[in-house]
Amino acid sequence: MKLKVRFETPIGVPVEAELEPEEDLYQVLRERGQAGWTAVRLRYQGIALPLACEECFDWRLLGASVVERDGFVEAVVIGGAEYKRRDLAERRGLPRVIKYSRGARDGDPAPLVEGSGQDRYVTLVRFVGAGPCPPELCRRDRSDRPGG
Amino acid sequence: MKLKVRFETPIGVPVEAELEPEEDLYQVLRERGQAGWTAVRLRYQGIALPLACEECFDWRLLGASVVERDGFVEAVVIGGAEYKRRDLAERRGLPRVIKYSRGARDGDPAPLVEGSGQDRYVTLVRFVGAGPCPPELCRRDRSDRPGG
Amino acid sequence: MKLKVRFETPIGVPVEAELEPEEDLYQVLRERGQAGWTAVRLRYQGIALPLACEECFDWRLLGASVVERDGFVEAVVIGGAEYKRRDLAERRGLPRVIKYSRGARDGDPAPLVEGSGQDRYVTLVRFVGAGPCPPELCRRDRSDRPGG
Amino acid sequence: MKLKVRFETPIGVPVEAELEPEEDLYQVLRERGQAGWTAVRLRYQGIALPLACEECFDWRLLGASVVERDGFVEAVVIGGAEYKRRDLAERRGLPRVIKYSRGARDGDPAPLVEGSGQDRYVTLVRFVGAGPCPPELCRRDRSDRPGG
Amino acid sequence: MKLKVRFETPIGVPVEAELEPEEDLYQVLRERGQAGWTAVRLRYQGIALPLACEECFDWRLLGASVVERDGFVEAVVIGGAEYKRRDLAERRGLPRVIKYSRGARDGDPAPLVEGSGQDRYVTLVRFVGAGPCPPELCRRDRSDRPGG
Repeated sequence: MKLKVRFETPIGVPVEAELEPEEDLYQVLRERGQAGWTAVRLRYQGIALPLACEECFDWRLLGASVVERDGFVEAVVIGGAEYKRRDLAERRGLPRVIKYSRGARDGDPAPLVEGSGQDRYVTLVRFVGAGPCPPELCRRDRSDRPGG
Repeated sequence: MKLKVRFETPIGVPVEAELEPEEDLYQVLRERGQAGWTAVRLRYQGIALPLACEECFDWRLLGASVVERDGFVEAVVIGGAEYKRRDLAERRGLPRVIKYSRGARDGDPAPLVEGSGQDRYVTLVRFVGAGPCPPELCRRDRSDRPGG
Repeated sequence: MKLKVRFETPIGVPVEAELEPEEDLYQVLRERGQAGWTAVRLRYQGIALPLACEECFDWRLLGASVVERDGFVEAVVIGGAEYKRRDLAERRGLPRVIKYSRGARDGDPAPLVEGSGQDRYVTLVRFVGAGPCPPELCRRDRSDRPGG
Repeated sequence: MKLKVRFETPIGVPVEAELEPEEDLYQVLRERGQAGWTAVRLRYQGIALPLACEECFDWRLLGASVVERDGFVEAVVIGGAEYKRRDLAERRGLPRVIKYSRGARDGDPAPLVEGSGQDRYVTLVRFVGAGPCPPELCRRDRSDRPGG
Repeated sequence: MKLKVRFETPIGVPVEAELEPEEDLYQVLRERGQAGWTAVRLRYQGIALPLACEECFDWRLLGASVVERDGFVEAVVIGGAEYKRRDLAERRGLPRVIKYSRGARDGDPAPLVEGSGQDRYVTLVRFVGAGPCPPELCRRDRSDRPGG
C-alpha cells in the first residue's frame, strides 16, 4: 500500500506527497510540519484525542508552531490562525476537556462553527477521555520539543 | 486495475492509500477502520444495504466503533459523531427499515439532512429490503466481532 | 495515456481505479456498474445523448439498475434514487426528448435543479437529437440486457 | 515531470488521464476534445487570450464543438451549453473584446456570474489585448479547422 | 517522496504535474509560473511571509506577472485579476504590513473576504513580521527579476 498526503505549503501552493515504501507517515508529517507544511483538515468540534495526549502531543504533525508558557502549550498557530488552549473542568457528568480553539470568522464554513451568538468558535483539537496516547503522536524526548 | 482509497485519519490528516495488486479492498478497509481511519462519505438517506446485513455487518469497513447492548449494535461512532439505531416497523406498505442516524446540526450540508422542523436528522446507513447480505460486508465469525 | 475513474461504491466508500493499459474504459464501467459502483456525476439538464441511444443504452455504464416494463426501461435507480422515464413529444419546433428524471429535493445543488415552483426536478439523462448511438454505449445483445 | 488532466466525458463520467512522457498535452486535449471530452473549468470573466487568438483558436482544446457562419465561429457548445460570440468595439479607453458567453442560469455558481438584473451572463473565453497567439493554441491549417 | 502540484493553465485546463526525483519544486513553480501556470490557492488574509521577503520575492512562484514602477512591484496579476500593493505603516502596536490585495467581488467565497461595507477586499500575500526571507522564495539576481 502506497500512501499519499496533500500538504498546504507556506506559499499557498498545495503539494501532494507520495511516500516511498520505506518512509514513515508520521515522520514525514513531522519533518514537513516543521517547515510549515500542513495537511490537517478542520473538523466539527475538533480532532478528538485522549486526554493523555495533551502532555506529549507533537504539534508538528499538524504543521503547527507553538507558543509555550510555564511548560504549557498556550496556543498553536497554523497558517496564521492562532488556536488558544482552554481547560474545561469536569462538570455535570461531562468529562474534563482541553481544547485548542479560535473565535469564528464570518466566512468560516458553517459545519465547523460551534456555539451561538457572540460566542462562536472553531476547534482544532480536543483532548478528552480515557486511554493512553498512541506513541506515534508524542514528542520523542525533551530535545524533540517544539520551540526547544 | 489499481484501486485507491482516501481515508480520514484520527489526527484529521487525509491520507490516500494505493492498494497493491495482492491487497483486498475490504480487508484494507477493515484493518484501517479498526485503527479509526474512515473512508466513508455520508449520503442522503444513508447507505442502502439489504435488511439481512443488519445482523452481520462489519462496521469496521466504515471506520466506525460500536456500542453494543443485549447483542445489538445500539450505536456506532465515526469521528466523534454517534449514530443511533432506529428500528422502524413495516407500515402502510413501507417495508421495515433499521437505520443508524443522528440529529442534524446547523452546519450539516443541506443535501444530507432529512425531516423538518425539530425532527431533522442525518442517516449513516439504512438496512432495508430483500436479498442476502454480500459476504464481504459481514463479520467473519464471533471472534471477528467489533468490541469482541 | 493511463486512465483513472473515481467510483462511489455501494457502502459509500469512494474508490479510484487506475486502468491497466489493456483494460477498456467502457468494459470496466460495465463490470463495476453491474456491482453497483457508479462514477457518473449529475449535470444540469442531464447527460445529452442522441435519441437513437434510447433503445440500446447500457445503463450499467452509469452504475444504474433498471426497472423494465413492456420492453421499456421505465425507471433507473442509482444510489437509491429513482429516475423515471418521460417521453416529451415534438412540439413548437422543439425536438422529441426522452428524459430520465426525478423530483428535486430540498438539498439538491441549485445548479442541477430545473423547473420552478412545485415542478422542480433533476435530470439524469436526456436522449435528444439526430445521429447514431456510439456502439460503445450500447448493450451488445439480448443476453447482455440489464435485468435479462 | 508527468502531467495529468481530468476530463468530463460525454456520458458524465469524469476520467483522469496520465500522459506518457512522449505525449503532448495540447495534442491530447485536441484528440479527446474532438470526441467531446472536456477538461476546461469556467473562470470569472472567462479565460483571457490575446485578441490575435480569435482567428486561429482551436476550440477542440476545450472540448467544444463550433457553429460557423460566414467564416466566423458564431457559437461554441460544451456539454450542451451554447456560448455565443459577442464583438465589443473599443470605447472609452477600453480595448476591443471578443467574448463567447451565455446567459446566466439560476444555479450558476455566484463567482462565475457577471452583470446584474436581467443582463447576467457567464463567459467562457474573452479575446482581448495585444500580443501574438501562442502557436500551440491555433489550428494548424485549413484541413484542421473544426467542422471542416 | 514524490511531489505533485496541480496547476491552472492559461487556457483554463487544470493540469497535475508529478515531479521527477531530480526536479526541484521551486524551480518547477518558477518555470511554469513564467508561462502563466499558477498553483496558488487564495487564503484568508493572504499568504503570510516575513517582511524581508518583500524586496526579493519571486512572484513567478505564484504564476503572477508583475507591474513595476520606481523599483517597486506596484501590482501583480494572476488569471486576469490584479492585486495592488498597499503599505500599512506600524501603528497602535500593530507591525508594518505590505499587502497585495484587490477589491472583493460579489461572488468571492465568504471565507476569503476581509473588511466590511464598501471596503471589502481579498488579499493574495501579506509581508509582515521579523525573520529572514527563505532563499528559495527569492529572485536569484537582477537578471532574474520579473519584467527584466
